[in-house]
Amino acid sequence: MLPGAPPPLQRLVGELQKLPGIGEKTATRLAFFILRAEGGYATALATSIAEAVDRVRLCSVCCSLTDSDPCALCKDPRRDDKLLCIVEGVADLMAVERTREYRGRYHVLHGALSPLEGIGPEQLRLKELIARLGDGVLLQPARQERVHEVIVATNPDVEGEATALYLTRLLRPLGVRISRIAQGLPMGGDLEFADQATLGRALVARREL
Amino acid sequence: MLPGAPPPLQRLVGELQKLPGIGEKTATRLAFFILRAEGGYATALATSIAEAVDRVRLCSVCCSLTDSDPCALCKDPRRDDKLLCIVEGVADLMAVERTREYRGRYHVLHGALSPLEGIGPEQLRLKELIARLGDGVLLQPARQERVHEVIVATNPDVEGEATALYLTRLLRPLGVRISRIAQGLPMGGDLEFADQATLGRALVARREL
Repeated sequence: MLPGAPPPLQRLVGELQKLPGIGEKTATRLAFFILRAEGGYATALATSIAEAVDRVRLCSVCCSLTDSDPCALCKDPRRDDKLLCIVEGVADLMAVERTREYRGRYHVLHGALSPLEGIGPEQLRLKELIARLGDGVLLQPARQERVHEVIVATNPDVEGEATALYLTRLLRPLGVRISRIAQGLPMGGDLEFADQATLGRALVARREL
Repeated sequence: MLPGAPPPLQRLVGELQKLPGIGEKTATRLAFFILRAEGGYATALATSIAEAVDRVRLCSVCCSLTDSDPCALCKDPRRDDKLLCIVEGVADLMAVERTREYRGRYHVLHGALSPLEGIGPEQLRLKELIARLGDGVLLQPARQERVHEVIVATNPDVEGEATALYLTRLLRPLGVRISRIAQGLPMGGDLEFADQATLGRALVARREL
């Protein structure tokens, strides 16, 4: 409730406040910016919201976000069909893409197992995963090649680890190689300030030089 | 640039990133929230943006934001015409309103004098202020009463102080009483941690008990 603000401004602040991490003060600042911005910014913002919601869907193959089905990554003939990287969310997929270290395919679970939050296997996109891997073949429209390795890239936290364990048990019978992204000290990190669990993992997973 | 994101999502993130204090990571998080939100949130947000930009204007009397001219505060017959509070921005007006300590009228300057940023008197809403005070009368549609006191509530920083000084010189010839909001230690504050300038002001402006 903003004292002395006209109703349309109140409504705009109210809607902005529903965004994650945006309180009343920030919402008010954003609303003032939108009102004052020049060059048709407000219209461009409103249009981009409507367009994104209207056009962005889940890819029927990898369950990532896309405006064409299958998505660009699933359709790209240069990607390696033999590798499949499983991530919790679309933001994780983007983080992996940003590394430029991975040229395989993806599968987005849209969550991680969390009994406390009521997220069980049926809330994750596992049916789609099994459908892709069921016959050991990635269902690509263009070409079909056997998946050699599934990389489980869920987060290294309790839910992500539980999901990784679940996926291992689920996919083991399919006879595919399953790997987990490495855990250890972050690059540029400092032993002195590393948490116990991370340093412990780094020691256990040490590799010969 | 988000690797692996469909163009409409890229555009939405791009527009959100133009908002103040919103970087790529936050913009991406907000975009995902908007895409996933239920109950027609995205439409409500887009509509509220378009509606606010379409309907919110500056009040021709006090220069605050309004969807009807003059604004609700200028039209309110219960407000005291004898008091006029001058603030830098609409957010400041709202902050004063929130205190419930003030029942007079307002004038919004839309800035403060700042030679470094190229903001001189002609960039502020001073013409409107003079027009209101020129004959010592607040131009209200309903009733006209002389202004007895102008409260200068610009920020207690360099620009706000300079603006206050300028306003004093500008309004002195009009024969109206001019006051400045008090400066001192904030409520709940601590002498030990107060900055020098604030504590110095608090001492100089001490009042008898």
